[in-house]
Amino acid sequence: MITLTTDFGLTDIYVGEMKGVIFQINPHARIVDITHSIPPQDLFAAAFQIDAVYQYFPDRSIHIIVVDPGVGSQRRSIVCQTAKATFVCPDNGICTKIFEREELIRTIEITNLDFCLPQVSHTFHGRDIFAPVAAHISCGVSLTDLGPEISNITMLSIPQPEIAEDRIIGEIIWIDHFGNAITNVLVETLKSTSFYTNLTIQVAGMKIDRLSRFYNESDIGSTLALVNSSGNIEIAVNQGSASSTLNIKTGEKILFLKTPPPK
Amino acid sequence: MITLTTDFGLTDIYVGEMKGVIFQINPHARIVDITHSIPPQDLFAAAFQIDAVYQYFPDRSIHIIVVDPGVGSQRRSIVCQTAKATFVCPDNGICTKIFEREELIRTIEITNLDFCLPQVSHTFHGRDIFAPVAAHISCGVSLTDLGPEISNITMLSIPQPEIAEDRIIGEIIWIDHFGNAITNVLVETLKSTSFYTNLTIQVAGMKIDRLSRFYNESDIGSTLALVNSSGNIEIAVNQGSASSTLNIKTGEKILFLKTPPPK
Amino acid sequence: MITLTTDFGLTDIYVGEMKGVIFQINPHARIVDITHSIPPQDLFAAAFQIDAVYQYFPDRSIHIIVVDPGVGSQRRSIVCQTAKATFVCPDNGICTKIFEREELIRTIEITNLDFCLPQVSHTFHGRDIFAPVAAHISCGVSLTDLGPEISNITMLSIPQPEIAEDRIIGEIIWIDHFGNAITNVLVETLKSTSFYTNLTIQVAGMKIDRLSRFYNESDIGSTLALVNSSGNIEIAVNQGSASSTLNIKTGEKILFLKTPPPK
Repeated sequence: MITLTTDFGLTDIYVGEMKGVIFQINPHARIVDITHSIPPQDLFAAAFQIDAVYQYFPDRSIHIIVVDPGVGSQRRSIVCQTAKATFVCPDNGICTKIFEREELIRTIEITNLDFCLPQVSHTFHGRDIFAPVAAHISCGVSLTDLGPEISNITMLSIPQPEIAEDRIIGEIIWIDHFGNAITNVLVETLKSTSFYTNLTIQVAGMKIDRLSRFYNESDIGSTLALVNSSGNIEIAVNQGSASSTLNIKTGEKILFLKTPPPK
Repeated sequence: MITLTTDFGLTDIYVGEMKGVIFQINPHARIVDITHSIPPQDLFAAAFQIDAVYQYFPDRSIHIIVVDPGVGSQRRSIVCQTAKATFVCPDNGICTKIFEREELIRTIEITNLDFCLPQVSHTFHGRDIFAPVAAHISCGVSLTDLGPEISNITMLSIPQPEIAEDRIIGEIIWIDHFGNAITNVLVETLKSTSFYTNLTIQVAGMKIDRLSRFYNESDIGSTLALVNSSGNIEIAVNQGSASSTLNIKTGEKILFLKTPPPK
Repeated sequence: MITLTTDFGLTDIYVGEMKGVIFQINPHARIVDITHSIPPQDLFAAAFQIDAVYQYFPDRSIHIIVVDPGVGSQRRSIVCQTAKATFVCPDNGICTKIFEREELIRTIEITNLDFCLPQVSHTFHGRDIFAPVAAHISCGVSLTDLGPEISNITMLSIPQPEIAEDRIIGEIIWIDHFGNAITNVLVETLKSTSFYTNLTIQVAGMKIDRLSRFYNESDIGSTLALVNSSGNIEIAVNQGSASSTLNIKTGEKILFLKTPPPK
């Protein structure tokens, strides 16, 4: 199984070209679109999204990830293997979150042009390198045939929440289709630091004094905080858009204050 | 064959997560996206759309439909079987139009967590319940293993046209990608009430005095009424957008007046 | 393999209906979406897009292309066969670029209703004619069973660059998802006319004095011209949108001036 995660959008033929290339090499390939709506050149968004989704795919899936502002320059093309999956992507840190979670078994720099298209352009390695390489891997080509093993890869410096005794300062990292504002603060962090049951949240001039369990727990139009389906704390408006109601944007800070437990 | 109809959009990984879950359970599943662009939480739109499309799919297809403002609350998760297909969805009336058309053979409340993901979140039953249940059904799991049969399900009160001797008052129920304004008045209704050949249509301050057969029958830019591909009366602008030209929105009324037959 | 290229968008069920129809006829069909975001009724955009992408698909793929302002009128429905692929589409010139590139082996007018849906609407031949015909072809139905061979088909008059001794006047033909402005001037043309290494480009009030090899060759935010992945000259802004930065739109002229070679 080959999945595709890109910032190519769906108005062009770029994704179609990649699929055509894959099917030319492996007519029996199963291709699944994860998303093509990563904001253009946004490596951080891509790193969060692929990390949240790849765990739900079958073992040994091959994930092509192309958010690639450096295409055509000296940046390397790589294949990374973990116990769970194989990732085919530019070496620009796009898999940082995954490699914080899972051990890297092997990383290969793609240098063997035999597994790329005959003409490699300077502007579209998704079609010319990543798609054909992934297709060849799905046909059983050994990673070691693709190029030399390398030991250093590019990692992003992902913004982490600041955790103090009485407060956690996090950040909005993604606004979803519904306008839900997703933070980089995990429920696990709130639990391990005893904020979980005793907190006040401050964001966008609002105070929220508890975590809801689900959207419809409050009235329609209410602002609430809850644990989203990936374990991140999320600010939502029941049947509305937190992003437009509260004017929240990616990068905005969010403050969690520990409150005294009720007596 | 498993189809997906949701309000999740395509900018997030939600649809990708559902597909990953399905493939983990049934690696040979065939998954078809119907649409992920149902307006958020719009049960009426979902009810109309799934009703119009499911008939075109092979018999015994499994349709996952997730527009789910009540996720995590007490609303039930159900599987509904008709002679034509199986529907896996929240019990919120989303299949109302289908069950007006086709007899319900069996409805099951999903209570057996063995067929759900190990951890069921309060915010994403599409991934945690509906996707795995549909995948298990596609593998041959019997509906009766999923939970108890139930006899009452939630139905929406779908707005019907008001039909009088000399007039029919309908409503715009959907604006499509081209800006065509689709009404809840069926051509069959116009025929059975003898409006079909003798009518004047009033909508958005316009009068239209006949039904066209196809878009290009009039000049480019002309406003026209015709029978759309689902049998609904539709207001269109040839090679333009009726919605933006006439400023028509969903919910707007449309009046059909019976005119005297020509002598 | 059956591909789909349309102007139907993804908010409606139109694409889903086509897929359902195909699977009813050929349950083993492989369907690939190329794009459904051709601008409504834009035959020129469709002609450029399908020409750029079809070459990347396996031989003998069946391409359904539906941009069809004349649906329901006298315009014919056709099947065109080349050495590389089969095209199922309205006879409105949508394949013009392909037939400039490749010889047409055979063109059939679809007249045999046995291979269409039982009821053919006047507004949606994608579902009622093109999808079922393509599905039947994928099952092995002979083209000659679909209708009579015809010898004349509609061709578009595609705008060509004006080439003079010292200048080439081209045109922006597509703005992609990233805001890159793609021209109808091919790198091959610049090479064969000796503009390639000695040129100044004028577009949208800007002067660009060389072709870059890749986006990241200049500073972030720089305007540049390069050869895109289809061989067309493209105006881009590194990690930005040329379209919004320079306010470039489709149809805008672009001037290539030959400069004296450096001494």
